[in-house]
Amino acid sequence: MAGNGSSHLIGFLCDTPMVGSGYFSMLQIGLIAGCHKSNTALVVKSFDLSDPGLADRISALLARTPLRGVILPEPICEIPAVLQAVADAGLPVVRIAPRTTTSTTLDICIDNRAAAYDMTRHLIELGHQRIAFIKGPPDHADAIARLDGFCDAMSEAGLAIDEALMPTGGFDYAQGLRAAERLLAFAPLPTAVFACNDEVAAAFLSTAHRIGLRIPDDFSLAGFDDSPLARSVFPEITTCRQKMELTGYMAVDFIIDPPASPEARTRPMQHELIIRRSTGKPRSG
Amino acid sequence: MAGNGSSHLIGFLCDTPMVGSGYFSMLQIGLIAGCHKSNTALVVKSFDLSDPGLADRISALLARTPLRGVILPEPICEIPAVLQAVADAGLPVVRIAPRTTTSTTLDICIDNRAAAYDMTRHLIELGHQRIAFIKGPPDHADAIARLDGFCDAMSEAGLAIDEALMPTGGFDYAQGLRAAERLLAFAPLPTAVFACNDEVAAAFLSTAHRIGLRIPDDFSLAGFDDSPLARSVFPEITTCRQKMELTGYMAVDFIIDPPASPEARTRPMQHELIIRRSTGKPRSG
Repeated sequence: MAGNGSSHLIGFLCDTPMVGSGYFSMLQIGLIAGCHKSNTALVVKSFDLSDPGLADRISALLARTPLRGVILPEPICEIPAVLQAVADAGLPVVRIAPRTTTSTTLDICIDNRAAAYDMTRHLIELGHQRIAFIKGPPDHADAIARLDGFCDAMSEAGLAIDEALMPTGGFDYAQGLRAAERLLAFAPLPTAVFACNDEVAAAFLSTAHRIGLRIPDDFSLAGFDDSPLARSVFPEITTCRQKMELTGYMAVDFIIDPPASPEARTRPMQHELIIRRSTGKPRSG
Repeated sequence: MAGNGSSHLIGFLCDTPMVGSGYFSMLQIGLIAGCHKSNTALVVKSFDLSDPGLADRISALLARTPLRGVILPEPICEIPAVLQAVADAGLPVVRIAPRTTTSTTLDICIDNRAAAYDMTRHLIELGHQRIAFIKGPPDHADAIARLDGFCDAMSEAGLAIDEALMPTGGFDYAQGLRAAERLLAFAPLPTAVFACNDEVAAAFLSTAHRIGLRIPDDFSLAGFDDSPLARSVFPEITTCRQKMELTGYMAVDFIIDPPASPEARTRPMQHELIIRRSTGKPRSG
């Protein structure tokens, strides 16, 4: 099969728990805008990544759907059988935020490690020394890279990396609530908390409100993603914007107009710190 | 054209500003789950509803995309030229929360007026008499129905409907912030605030936090939709769940397995009050 070069349908395949998340919403705004511009339409399909028949299901979908190309986010974009199924169908693949390199895919790369390093530097430069990090899912590449970036900045500044101040929060609000409670039961408390994403940061903020601690007076709080939630709470949360809307838009553009040169097959996305009211100098600083 | 009875593609056509909203996210979780169950895939396409060529664009999409049927939310589902374009393509149409009736479409009906009535009754039964209502977009059917339900309950209880306590908040957070400021500048203040949706309720909550007012001690606050945001703030917001995920799931099922009898072409969805910590008795009550 030689692809469907004239098709107007772009596939977006993801894992089911991602559907409805803030990350998914932001990415999809860009995907749909990209389809609007290119007069194409988005075919969205979610899968259970633990299904042993995953690759066969994808092959079946591709066999009966004339797609122009396929966009794969993390973590489905790392599954070799999935990449093989799409390659067998002769379709171009755009991967969003992959952790590995390939010679066949088009990749939009986000440097989570550098972004988390920059956010940690922001907290250190404000004067914080005792900084907690709420970790994401232990097996998620983005979460691991954010943790690495945090550790890079702490080590470089000669600050202690204290495992007791690094609970696992997952990527969702409910897990964030549990991590916040574990963290706030610890003494002495940190002066700043860097959460692996904005949902988890919002959970920490809610917990702080509930027990009467104030942000940023008692703690500085930083998140990650710049999801709408970070702007929908008080105080608004300092975060790292990864331009997911632009990423989605560029992913469609990559399918429609793939670059000729091998070097251009990887596009880095720049991150940007968004400093809001949730971070400030430590009380004693 | 006689439709595409064996196609595995279900169309979801909406207006562009809806993409990425909490409402859209919840609906899409159900749409994608419904597609998963029925071994179909969702084709998502957004449009500028003010475009004079809207119906032609939809006809062009339908001509080149073998859809099994089309799902249309409010307000695109009320545009006669859009309905005609889909009918001309011979495709079944499911409308979500329409305000009008037709003889040709399959409709999933949500009684926004009854739901808003029930929420207002909840506030009245807690002892509130001076209740503000933050209105949604003036031309949006759901927003108008919610306002009507509020007025029904207030009138029935013999309580004053005070236009000064009914600012327009739109359906988004930024508009909600402006409405909250206008409302909080008013004296004497109401004891309860019912916002047209959860984004606007969250904006009121943020504004209250910012100026040092406490919820529910100083105000009771209620929203609408039960979006994830209502559960991601402190205190969690009392709201009206409309089961949008189930609605999306049922919409796909309606396309796959359309009912034979005319009466079964309309399915009512039940609403449910979700009472959380943001509502309580008035301070003087």
